[in-house]
Amino acid sequence: MKFTHFDEEGRSKMVDVSEKSDTFREAHASGFIYMKQETLDLILNKKIEKGNVFEVARVAGIMALKKTSDLIPMCHPLNITGAEIHFTPEPDKNRIKIDCKVRLTGKTGVEMEALTGVSVAALTIYDMCKAVDKEMIISDIMLIKKTGGKSGTFVRKV
Amino acid sequence: MKFTHFDEEGRSKMVDVSEKSDTFREAHASGFIYMKQETLDLILNKKIEKGNVFEVARVAGIMALKKTSDLIPMCHPLNITGAEIHFTPEPDKNRIKIDCKVRLTGKTGVEMEALTGVSVAALTIYDMCKAVDKEMIISDIMLIKKTGGKSGTFVRKV
Amino acid sequence: MKFTHFDEEGRSKMVDVSEKSDTFREAHASGFIYMKQETLDLILNKKIEKGNVFEVARVAGIMALKKTSDLIPMCHPLNITGAEIHFTPEPDKNRIKIDCKVRLTGKTGVEMEALTGVSVAALTIYDMCKAVDKEMIISDIMLIKKTGGKSGTFVRKV
Amino acid sequence: MKFTHFDEEGRSKMVDVSEKSDTFREAHASGFIYMKQETLDLILNKKIEKGNVFEVARVAGIMALKKTSDLIPMCHPLNITGAEIHFTPEPDKNRIKIDCKVRLTGKTGVEMEALTGVSVAALTIYDMCKAVDKEMIISDIMLIKKTGGKSGTFVRKV
Amino acid sequence: MKFTHFDEEGRSKMVDVSEKSDTFREAHASGFIYMKQETLDLILNKKIEKGNVFEVARVAGIMALKKTSDLIPMCHPLNITGAEIHFTPEPDKNRIKIDCKVRLTGKTGVEMEALTGVSVAALTIYDMCKAVDKEMIISDIMLIKKTGGKSGTFVRKV
Amino acid sequence: MKFTHFDEEGRSKMVDVSEKSDTFREAHASGFIYMKQETLDLILNKKIEKGNVFEVARVAGIMALKKTSDLIPMCHPLNITGAEIHFTPEPDKNRIKIDCKVRLTGKTGVEMEALTGVSVAALTIYDMCKAVDKEMIISDIMLIKKTGGKSGTFVRKV
Repeated sequence: MKFTHFDEEGRSKMVDVSEKSDTFREAHASGFIYMKQETLDLILNKKIEKGNVFEVARVAGIMALKKTSDLIPMCHPLNITGAEIHFTPEPDKNRIKIDCKVRLTGKTGVEMEALTGVSVAALTIYDMCKAVDKEMIISDIMLIKKTGGKSGTFVRKV
Repeated sequence: MKFTHFDEEGRSKMVDVSEKSDTFREAHASGFIYMKQETLDLILNKKIEKGNVFEVARVAGIMALKKTSDLIPMCHPLNITGAEIHFTPEPDKNRIKIDCKVRLTGKTGVEMEALTGVSVAALTIYDMCKAVDKEMIISDIMLIKKTGGKSGTFVRKV
Repeated sequence: MKFTHFDEEGRSKMVDVSEKSDTFREAHASGFIYMKQETLDLILNKKIEKGNVFEVARVAGIMALKKTSDLIPMCHPLNITGAEIHFTPEPDKNRIKIDCKVRLTGKTGVEMEALTGVSVAALTIYDMCKAVDKEMIISDIMLIKKTGGKSGTFVRKV
Repeated sequence: MKFTHFDEEGRSKMVDVSEKSDTFREAHASGFIYMKQETLDLILNKKIEKGNVFEVARVAGIMALKKTSDLIPMCHPLNITGAEIHFTPEPDKNRIKIDCKVRLTGKTGVEMEALTGVSVAALTIYDMCKAVDKEMIISDIMLIKKTGGKSGTFVRKV
Repeated sequence: MKFTHFDEEGRSKMVDVSEKSDTFREAHASGFIYMKQETLDLILNKKIEKGNVFEVARVAGIMALKKTSDLIPMCHPLNITGAEIHFTPEPDKNRIKIDCKVRLTGKTGVEMEALTGVSVAALTIYDMCKAVDKEMIISDIMLIKKTGGKSGTFVRKV
Repeated sequence: MKFTHFDEEGRSKMVDVSEKSDTFREAHASGFIYMKQETLDLILNKKIEKGNVFEVARVAGIMALKKTSDLIPMCHPLNITGAEIHFTPEPDKNRIKIDCKVRLTGKTGVEMEALTGVSVAALTIYDMCKAVDKEMIISDIMLIKKTGGKSGTFVRKV
């Protein structure tokens, strides 16, 4: 068991994937943002007006996941071929669930892209609401599933 | 109680801070990344070799917080005047604590910058270690303290 | 009458504004995107559902105007202090009017930022609708008004 | 007739093109910038000295079209394989015509890249000349032709 | 004598300059690119045609120095207030001298910006000419002079 | 012998590589940074503590080479498939050697990426050490070897 992002002398590097073939890959990550009940109410009421917090956060998350390799030092630049972000308000738990799915026909997996999409969507919700609630918590960002590539399918056990 | 990032008709906007004065502001955010015990052991052993996971994640977090306004749609661009990220391994809890402090003499707070620094540092740790552990969880990203600005000091109650 | 972005030998340069003082400046630009009647109908109907073309285009325009200096070679980097983009559908003329206002307390004007906001908002509308209409036309992007700075107020004559 | 950038519930998304094959695609967009006769004269005289407005605008347009997916939220990142921008002064009409052609062997069309190239080249001309003429107008940015891809060839009717 | 970019335990950080005042600062860096005589001849002949290598390299250098803080991890983001890049062909030495001057009214020096401007201008010349000469060498990139700031004036001894 | 980045009328352009096939390509560039003996000693001592100059510079160089096409105007965007940067201190010559290797399966060579990696790694070393030594010199940045592509293998003669 070893880290692939370091060479045998412990120096960080971008792993060589030149010889990998272009195959279809998909990753699904999710996470939560917890907030006061009043904050969630405001977001949900907002949603039926012209603008809405979710649409801004969705755009932010999608734009961010496209520049994952610009944020995470050893990530390979990838031409993402599909992405979507969904928000599921869970008012009884004072939280919003964020799901991000990313697709690629390419040489490496898109787990980091999906995790980045969730993270930046959550940060954007925080930003849009921080004037009324500074105690929101971003939690449980995790990989739910990935398919494709040499390491095959990963499904998180619940 | 209302959202400042929307106008009276519900359209998102970047809040006008033109008239605010340049004052000293500081924000401290923190978060955790949970992982298998073996993964944490590997990171800590790695740490005594030439390269190390923490240094890569620290650089990534600091570079990312400088482009917060490029990631979060309604964030104002800011000339951050200081930033640091610390990692505290907590082996008994199978997690690493991430703390990020950001400083600015400017017109708006740097909460989003501190939260972005924590998030991207955590994502980078995930990326560096995902070859050995895909089940890591990024959790409890929150604002610990902020000072400065019209809204004054905020300290999170434990 | 001469171009300030070239030196006396005709070489492009970024004009020196080091000695200018930080004053309040505002710029207002506008433009239009023309489209088929059916396309405009679709956008307007869409608007009452969950997502909407205007919110995506607004976010895109605001994010783009923050990186004007990254797009326009001789533009000074600026810490924009406020921005908003409005869309006014004009169904009888088969077009949407786009207005962008940008504010800054700083050393140079924000005309380019306002014009960039309009341009990228228009391009985003084109992108969101191009599957149904490739003949849209982006037109009449112009500066409406600017205030502040040594050159004073400019108001476009109608 | 429907928008592809929204799912069935109206949420914006990046369309999935994972299964599309890499084929040759080309797009040609054009636009105009109108200005005072004196401004155009200055540009054209400038052109025979060392630096010139067109070369700066050409570089800006080419650099911008490479980051189209960073500007337009739902655009796929693409590895553009060729691009050129031409300027045709039309002194009798007090305007400059801007043509941008972009080529790609890839999974989606490059219309947005060509339109972005024209837009940013026009904005750069505005910036280079705004000290002498604030009333310039950027107009008639449109797609002239596209070839390749499932939707085939589009040629704008004059 | 110690490194300011590390804390007392050896962790990299972005130095805190929050308390520094905004003062005028200037930096001048230079460097050379060596090439075959024929390559230099081609550039100089090119120069009298429509486009020219120097104008492309100048634009690239100026755009790059504006994003120095996006390239160099511990650099503070700065709103550069002026920049220029000059090229001096020295045909008898088969080289081109590159000079870059950067100005700022701000809290930290602009040495890194000037050095980055020289470096990217040199890289761009390499790129524009590499089809005819792969053996070019970029050399002697150094700080010539800086003024302003607490550490005062530095002038390189020849 | 002619420049490929200009058309027959001398206008700069991005060369069309649409018809090239995706083949394996590799480039190796190197360079040096010269410094005072005390500065090099400090770096080497630092290296055995927690953080180190080389790891920060390595991360910076790798992140920068991923955005080469964002820095060099006529460079094609590429999805780099592997990269590494090594530092070799040469205390007897008061310098550090920097080697950067970049790999790609794609349509154009990665010489510019390797040269950019060396340049930004060198600039980062300068930045990390400039508080103690402003007279460092970055020199002899050159292409050592490239393989792959139509123009075949290039090996620099020593």
